[in-house]
Amino acid sequence: MTLKHLFSLPNDIVYLCGHSLGPMPKMAALCLQEGLHHWEQNLVGAWHDWIDLPKQLGSKIALLIGSSPNEVIVCDSTSINLMKLLLSAIPLNPNRNIILTEQGNFPADLYIADSVACLQNKTVKAVSPDAIVEAMDEQVAVLMLTHVNYRTSFKYDMAKINRKAKALGILTLWDLSHSVGIMPLDCSKFEVDFAVGCTYKYLNGGPGAPSFLYVHQKHLNQIPAIRGWMGHKTPFTFSPHYESANGITAYLTGTPNILSMKALEGALHVFEKVDLAALQEKSTALSSYLIAQCQQYLPDLMLASPFSSAQRGSHVAFSHPHAYAISRAMIAKGVIMDYREPNLMRFGLSPLYVDFADIEKTMEIFREVVQKKLYDLPHFEKKLKVT
Amino acid sequence: MTLKHLFSLPNDIVYLCGHSLGPMPKMAALCLQEGLHHWEQNLVGAWHDWIDLPKQLGSKIALLIGSSPNEVIVCDSTSINLMKLLLSAIPLNPNRNIILTEQGNFPADLYIADSVACLQNKTVKAVSPDAIVEAMDEQVAVLMLTHVNYRTSFKYDMAKINRKAKALGILTLWDLSHSVGIMPLDCSKFEVDFAVGCTYKYLNGGPGAPSFLYVHQKHLNQIPAIRGWMGHKTPFTFSPHYESANGITAYLTGTPNILSMKALEGALHVFEKVDLAALQEKSTALSSYLIAQCQQYLPDLMLASPFSSAQRGSHVAFSHPHAYAISRAMIAKGVIMDYREPNLMRFGLSPLYVDFADIEKTMEIFREVVQKKLYDLPHFEKKLKVT
Repeated sequence: MTLKHLFSLPNDIVYLCGHSLGPMPKMAALCLQEGLHHWEQNLVGAWHDWIDLPKQLGSKIALLIGSSPNEVIVCDSTSINLMKLLLSAIPLNPNRNIILTEQGNFPADLYIADSVACLQNKTVKAVSPDAIVEAMDEQVAVLMLTHVNYRTSFKYDMAKINRKAKALGILTLWDLSHSVGIMPLDCSKFEVDFAVGCTYKYLNGGPGAPSFLYVHQKHLNQIPAIRGWMGHKTPFTFSPHYESANGITAYLTGTPNILSMKALEGALHVFEKVDLAALQEKSTALSSYLIAQCQQYLPDLMLASPFSSAQRGSHVAFSHPHAYAISRAMIAKGVIMDYREPNLMRFGLSPLYVDFADIEKTMEIFREVVQKKLYDLPHFEKKLKVT
Repeated sequence: MTLKHLFSLPNDIVYLCGHSLGPMPKMAALCLQEGLHHWEQNLVGAWHDWIDLPKQLGSKIALLIGSSPNEVIVCDSTSINLMKLLLSAIPLNPNRNIILTEQGNFPADLYIADSVACLQNKTVKAVSPDAIVEAMDEQVAVLMLTHVNYRTSFKYDMAKINRKAKALGILTLWDLSHSVGIMPLDCSKFEVDFAVGCTYKYLNGGPGAPSFLYVHQKHLNQIPAIRGWMGHKTPFTFSPHYESANGITAYLTGTPNILSMKALEGALHVFEKVDLAALQEKSTALSSYLIAQCQQYLPDLMLASPFSSAQRGSHVAFSHPHAYAISRAMIAKGVIMDYREPNLMRFGLSPLYVDFADIEKTMEIFREVVQKKLYDLPHFEKKLKVT
């Protein structure tokens, strides 16, 4: 299965940074043009078609995370959504004081958890991934984890963790940024309480595309902590008194960002005929092949990702003392991958458009660069890197 | 002065809803195309050019609000920015418990103030516009006002209010959504502490375009209440420990929404050669002319805006028992204006592209519709209206 033809990718590169910013789906450009034209021609009247976009896109993402369509909505950034959900979750466990998370969680998530903890007089307890299960106890109000780690690609066993959380009365808040769009997810089946996720990585929604948030239907009768205009039952009566919209719409705050949402709408078309189980199968086949090739030909590399494909997302990380210089050399030769401090090279193998020929080409260049030390050049100096 | 040629407006209409959604500047479409092309061709590498956009756009808006370039940044929605600033402002006045605002403030602002008050155990005191000055006392932590009222167009005397606020140790937080881009503003001169504003109204940034926030430089050494990844000193070292960026950048949270920001970038080009004092002069001339014409020819209308142009923004509101039906009839005849519950018609006279010929045409149709009661038709039934 390859859907590469649905993307507009430059011919001369191998793109292995879809875990950071997905490439442009052709439909994303078309839908964005349509939105632009609608603005131009119909001005404020176009809002009749736009006002339901956050829910419409949410219901498409619901299919990717195994939830009901009415549990997901698209709005704001992942950080802001995380904040909104943490603020709403904490009062549901009023006698507990701890937000439990992982030390190595994406830093944005840690900063938001700390911000919320300060505001709510709670404590963030951050432990190593293998200490999470043990740290779950009846002091924990909310367990906030990222399903697939942004550095190592380590994937938590969501079923097992949610089972224990439920038994202990802990609310779960999963960040699905590095797992949505590459594997089946089961928010309903595992009774996930809350979730957020990024749409500009494997969903290819465009740079800084709006995020999504999910709330299990059992919590949808609660009024959100942050109450916004667009989450009002009847926003256009402009009442000074807040009355919550029904369901997930209550989690909207300000005016939806339409141009970015139109690009995302186009990007989500790509997933309409995708079998997520087959997508995951291809993802693990690609990453297992890359790992096997590296072990055979580049034994000095250290695999920084789990060896077992059952424990991985769709990127693979290797460490090397010259990781930064190597990654610059790879990019200069047309293999677009990335580097993470202090010594990590990440290869994002988005199964929608990466194929085995890409892995072959990557290995050819990777072997050449590492074995011939083509990276050891003075102009590969370290400078600010951007994801 | 007219800059109508810089906008792509349909030929056959008079557009008087720029107070709700500005029309498409031609440069907005061009800059958005450029952003789309950059994504397509340079993928994740394009971030080198994008990463500073929030500050670059902020420094352009600073010129419009009379502040230093390093006090303004573009991010999130107006509601979210209001929340971020309220949460950051309240601890600066730790022994005070009141957020003072106006009953008739834009409902989104009231809902956010209530949300923050609940989280921080504070009280929102909402009074009528003429009771604001009297209600200012040493119990008030933050005075949160919208400079120009979204319904009536009533404009506060910012100089006078800020002078009193300063004398009483009250922090000011102004919502400039209905005043930015139509008149000179003086945040530095009046020592405004905090401000937010919308960019999709008179700044014409596109549907749901990102908002801006302003923080007076004397507060820029404070760490924001909501600490995000993009507000970190060195986000790309991915440290688990938050260290605040210098200056206004600290108020960023998640990844900037690039496609929408590119459209806004184009929209702000329009203002590069605009003299704001001349713009305001044209704005008041337009609105005074519309008011005078209505008083002469449509004496049954009630002016719901201040008669004195010194107290008005750039829209004018009239009340009429059949306001909704009249507004539908006007729109059907090509004059795009809007209606607000329960009986208000709003005419937004954005001086960049509205001219006296537009007012003439509006009056011709307005007189015809009202005098001949062309609005009294069964198909103008009331339904959901969208701003």
